[in-house]
Amino acid sequence: MAALVSDSLAKENNDKASENSTIQVIGGHGTNSYSNNSSYQRLSANVVTKKIEDAIMKNLDVETLSSTSNIFRVADFGCGVGSNTINSMQDLLLIVEKKYISQCPTSSQMPEFQVIFNDQFTNDFNTLFTYLPQDKQYLVASVPGSFHNQVLPKSSLHLAHCSYSLHWLSRLPKELRDERSPAWNKGKIHYTSAPPEVLMAYATQFAEDLDNFLSARGREMVSGGMIVIVGSSIPDGMPYSQVVNGIMYDCMGSILMDMVKTGSISEADVDAFNLPIYACPPGEFIEGVERNGLFSIEVIELMNPAPWLKGPIDIPVFVKHVRAAMEGMFSNHFPSKAIDELFDHLVLKLSDISQQLESCYRDGLQLFAILKRK
Amino acid sequence: MAALVSDSLAKENNDKASENSTIQVIGGHGTNSYSNNSSYQRLSANVVTKKIEDAIMKNLDVETLSSTSNIFRVADFGCGVGSNTINSMQDLLLIVEKKYISQCPTSSQMPEFQVIFNDQFTNDFNTLFTYLPQDKQYLVASVPGSFHNQVLPKSSLHLAHCSYSLHWLSRLPKELRDERSPAWNKGKIHYTSAPPEVLMAYATQFAEDLDNFLSARGREMVSGGMIVIVGSSIPDGMPYSQVVNGIMYDCMGSILMDMVKTGSISEADVDAFNLPIYACPPGEFIEGVERNGLFSIEVIELMNPAPWLKGPIDIPVFVKHVRAAMEGMFSNHFPSKAIDELFDHLVLKLSDISQQLESCYRDGLQLFAILKRK
Repeated sequence: MAALVSDSLAKENNDKASENSTIQVIGGHGTNSYSNNSSYQRLSANVVTKKIEDAIMKNLDVETLSSTSNIFRVADFGCGVGSNTINSMQDLLLIVEKKYISQCPTSSQMPEFQVIFNDQFTNDFNTLFTYLPQDKQYLVASVPGSFHNQVLPKSSLHLAHCSYSLHWLSRLPKELRDERSPAWNKGKIHYTSAPPEVLMAYATQFAEDLDNFLSARGREMVSGGMIVIVGSSIPDGMPYSQVVNGIMYDCMGSILMDMVKTGSISEADVDAFNLPIYACPPGEFIEGVERNGLFSIEVIELMNPAPWLKGPIDIPVFVKHVRAAMEGMFSNHFPSKAIDELFDHLVLKLSDISQQLESCYRDGLQLFAILKRK
Repeated sequence: MAALVSDSLAKENNDKASENSTIQVIGGHGTNSYSNNSSYQRLSANVVTKKIEDAIMKNLDVETLSSTSNIFRVADFGCGVGSNTINSMQDLLLIVEKKYISQCPTSSQMPEFQVIFNDQFTNDFNTLFTYLPQDKQYLVASVPGSFHNQVLPKSSLHLAHCSYSLHWLSRLPKELRDERSPAWNKGKIHYTSAPPEVLMAYATQFAEDLDNFLSARGREMVSGGMIVIVGSSIPDGMPYSQVVNGIMYDCMGSILMDMVKTGSISEADVDAFNLPIYACPPGEFIEGVERNGLFSIEVIELMNPAPWLKGPIDIPVFVKHVRAAMEGMFSNHFPSKAIDELFDHLVLKLSDISQQLESCYRDGLQLFAILKRK
């Protein structure tokens, strides 16, 4: 069930708007909150820490960076609400400190460190701040606003982190709702199992978003600064219907269509709803970075997002995680009674096909990339 | 009633902790929220804008500042929740832009502007962000943490603003609760009408806080950067019992003692409670800045905080403002039923002495100062 965990559950907080709605994870500390249902994501984060350390020790030239500034800024783009973002940032700081000690052993002092948390204006920064340790040894700032735009001053950032955020589209392509378009996504809520024109519409929007993201970071970052990207992916050419998330999105779509039959919701509502989520294959990602031209690719690979997950999965617990991450998308479009019905049925439907889910492809569904500002 | 409005009502948001409690203005947009009860403060802010403009046009050397950086950072320390902080910051940006145009007419472009909102970790930054205009032409960050410590990177800040925040003490002197001390503040909640040792304990704590504030800003600000300070004050040597706020604090104390008699609260609770608010006279302020040594004083004067307020005051509306600003202090110490009783009685008690309030001293109760980093 690795793909489900990494892809649908991960930091779904940073949330891009669908056409009519703003997606947001559930804030606060309540039973259904993201902060209380994100243990898997923390595990996932630990798996990549060693790879980040290797890349920073090898490729980040802190001596040159510190020659122009006494401050070292690290930013998390799409930080969300839970403690994962704080843990990830602290892990990064430890690695950067280690690099300073290794590369500048004679230097009398470390730079000051500032950790910057970025997410949409609607993110629950108040709750995020409650997770900060009291004895933290770094400065903190939050910067609200879409990371598809510049949100920090020019040439002020040294290290960026973006974990399970880029897969959120900034908007849904209009043609998905256009009856006259071959990309009209009737009766479905995602490109999984949809006509190729639907997939193409999603891919085109993702490419535009990636370009905006890279251009914005290009302005904000100093030359030699690095971006760590971890997120949803899939091997080049593999249909999304072969992975667990795809199967789950198909299930969600078919549950919603069943609810049309019982009159809980209207068919037009289902036709008008699409998940703004795109898992970019590495080939498209490389193409996008090269087309943008501001960053070199230092590392890129596909990983198993959760190799520790073996054997049968606890479907009710899993759906609770999915709900914490995704409920905002549905609740902006469907009545709250329908949301309960959807997730209740999802537990039943996924339980029925648990054998099929277990045998899905689950290996290379996480992209890990490190880019360096030219 | 100028003093009441400016002193007790103003931006009580940034809120320093009393010994057992964290003070906080009421967040959100509800009936009793600070954001919906701060119109007086906005008016008050407009009165000083012209003075700030004069000082910036005369004393801020933007040519030198822009020679070392393409970013101009403005921070509000003790920003609170309402739209006042955003309006004040936008006013400052307009003035700085005007100075750039006047001093660097041949320069091809303005620097980038970043507006930084600082307040305690418990401040409602989520609500603050909802007031930001969608078409804003500046970058934004929020920086949580006490402004008595460094919260921004060294030498990164160009202009600081601190409006009705410095009067909050970082902590209450212990001797106020010590039965064996001459500064034991039995049966009172403030230094108004208290023994001189009580006033001295408050003044000593304020001096320490001011020194910490200036040292922290000293680290954060570039040489030539300026701090605008607006806040509660009183002419040197004048007892606080001669101004409206002092009378109100005395009223609050005596209402609480009446409530002890009816059994609503205990006498020990009143003895243990003190308002962490100090209105620093200009003489002490000048002494503190000179002792600290990092800043020169460019402007310092006492003003009437609300010269437009004439004639009778609407006591119920006024107490609603006071409550929005001060309720947090009381509610951390007394049961919520007692808070309603306190403010209900305050309306009655202030109405009874409205003649006395009208004739109070109200002129020089606002300190306006501009400091420049040496």
